Amino acid sequence: MSVNLRIPGPTPCPEDVLEACGRQMINHRGPEFAEMIARQTSKLQKLCQTKHDFYIMTTSGTGVMEAAIVNTLSPGDKVLNVSVGVFGDRFGQIAEAYGAKVTSLKGEWGKGADPEEVARALEADRELKAVLVTHNETSTGVTNKLGEIAKAIRRVRPDILILVDAISSLGAIALPIDEWDLDVVVTASQKGWMVPPALGFVVFGPRAWQAYEKAAMPRFYFDVGKAKDYLQRGQTAWTPAVSVFFGLELALDKLEAEGIENIFARHHRVAEVARQGVKSLGLELFSDESVASDTVSAVKVPEGVDGVKLVKVMREEHGVVLAGGQTTLAGKIFRIGHLGWVFEADVQAVIDALRVALPKLGY
Amino acid sequence: MSVNLRIPGPTPCPEDVLEACGRQMINHRGPEFAEMIARQTSKLQKLCQTKHDFYIMTTSGTGVMEAAIVNTLSPGDKVLNVSVGVFGDRFGQIAEAYGAKVTSLKGEWGKGADPEEVARALEADRELKAVLVTHNETSTGVTNKLGEIAKAIRRVRPDILILVDAISSLGAIALPIDEWDLDVVVTASQKGWMVPPALGFVVFGPRAWQAYEKAAMPRFYFDVGKAKDYLQRGQTAWTPAVSVFFGLELALDKLEAEGIENIFARHHRVAEVARQGVKSLGLELFSDESVASDTVSAVKVPEGVDGVKLVKVMREEHGVVLAGGQTTLAGKIFRIGHLGWVFEADVQAVIDALRVALPKLGY
Repeated sequence: MSVNLRIPGPTPCPEDVLEACGRQMINHRGPEFAEMIARQTSKLQKLCQTKHDFYIMTTSGTGVMEAAIVNTLSPGDKVLNVSVGVFGDRFGQIAEAYGAKVTSLKGEWGKGADPEEVARALEADRELKAVLVTHNETSTGVTNKLGEIAKAIRRVRPDILILVDAISSLGAIALPIDEWDLDVVVTASQKGWMVPPALGFVVFGPRAWQAYEKAAMPRFYFDVGKAKDYLQRGQTAWTPAVSVFFGLELALDKLEAEGIENIFARHHRVAEVARQGVKSLGLELFSDESVASDTVSAVKVPEGVDGVKLVKVMREEHGVVLAGGQTTLAGKIFRIGHLGWVFEADVQAVIDALRVALPKLGY
Repeated sequence: MSVNLRIPGPTPCPEDVLEACGRQMINHRGPEFAEMIARQTSKLQKLCQTKHDFYIMTTSGTGVMEAAIVNTLSPGDKVLNVSVGVFGDRFGQIAEAYGAKVTSLKGEWGKGADPEEVARALEADRELKAVLVTHNETSTGVTNKLGEIAKAIRRVRPDILILVDAISSLGAIALPIDEWDLDVVVTASQKGWMVPPALGFVVFGPRAWQAYEKAAMPRFYFDVGKAKDYLQRGQTAWTPAVSVFFGLELALDKLEAEGIENIFARHHRVAEVARQGVKSLGLELFSDESVASDTVSAVKVPEGVDGVKLVKVMREEHGVVLAGGQTTLAGKIFRIGHLGWVFEADVQAVIDALRVALPKLGY
């Protein structure tokens, strides 16, 4: 039985990308690596529609979220955390772990954050130094209206730092970083980028560099200043995940050839297959339609069906690997990942399998 | 021209290990990954001759050095950093970055640390909370006599924390962690383990866990408490470098089949080929013979020869990739890596190439 890996990362990779990941090692401080990282950094900047600095670190998405915080803030700094789910909460937890004073603006799960509420929170406390915000909340299948949120933030506080978790959106959903005037944006290789996990990407703008000069949170491994110094020599500060760099080389060629607008359009089309398919089965999305994500769909487990068992049956009997719900959503939703190297047929196959599996589970 | 990658990591990997690294992605929170990480953790503990807890993190060696520190110490804690090279210095820099008060005991580069000097430093300041020490100093080709150092430390301070950078030694040079009563020991996948970079390993003993309860340095990504919670469920806290886990599966089988004592013996034999070969060319080791490392040989660039050019010629004309000297040793030494998947012939080929290259460079 072939496996249809439909979790929101790690996502399946094209065969030739995987083959490249199996290449023999090279010197990570030699000329071949230097050419590779220079080329990839430049291609990634273009695909991310940004002129900001761009750093590749060997870590997961959580690691680059930590990088966003520790490179721009000091202990005691007040920050506003706009959270609509598990990963939004995590962003605030990281800031707290490093001594920031976090005001949480928690939105209802399944809905997007309200730009005007964010603006009011900023008006209520003029000492806030930064806003932490999730672009695409993987735990609830919600894409925040980040353009509107950023506009509301800038209206009230033109110079506040905006730190964005775009782990499951960048490269898959439109996110014009410079146009929206975002300061730090992070993502990770195993999401939209069609390569295995191990690399985190950090977009770091001029306002973030100004903040870096004063930021007193301790940092070493995730220090963007060190990343900058080494990148100038064609290196990463610490030994990188060379294999994934090899894969990224091919993946970026494919993404470039497709074109970023076409990639966004493909993700939207595939997501529509998921949304319409779910509805055709009489199921409901967990998220509001108006903010339903183009990279992951969260679906309510229907009354009377065991959500954990559903995920198990889908895997064992249909070869479809879905994600369950996290924390309080465990058993209550299941999630279909549709980002990266994904096409309509991959998601249609999930719907077809659900159509067979659900009745056997009492639906 | 085939390439003979002879830097002290990333080290070459066996073909089937590389092929495994090219496997398609799986769910890192699913049953297959759970079985894999449980099996690998147990095998690694055996190969590392330890009953201490063992955690695999997606990062480089520097990342797990940071993990050793932030999980056991608090800002303001006094620590003794025993350094005999670049990586020893780095260990102290990480501790300083997180607010430790670091007393540096700097030994002459090329020599090992003196156990009695370490003991005296501990006697001189009874408030020291931890000793940071490098087992194998990659920058100078020195293996510290860690057993004697640990014994001297325990004589003076039976309960002080001993944090060990064994990045380029564990799994290649004898390091009986429990017998030597070491508290935290770290290494990384691209060194002795015959797999690509991306994974750091953390050995964490009972005294370290006691320290963890009080340790107030901020941490999130590198939190071993989170690693422990997730490992109990067969997971890593954050999305891991799945590809390298696939490779590690095969590499551990090979290492087990060879047997740890045979692996140590092989590294010693291969290192002898390097040391005798270098001498046969009339060259000198940078390190004292008594502490010359079995995983990396540092060799003095002979008078009149351009060390940077030598490394270039070896690479371009002979396909031999050597490492140069770091920081103040740049151009003054070159280094031959001989750890991991390495045999006598690999190092003999380096000597043979040097025999041709050196005379052309004025030697």
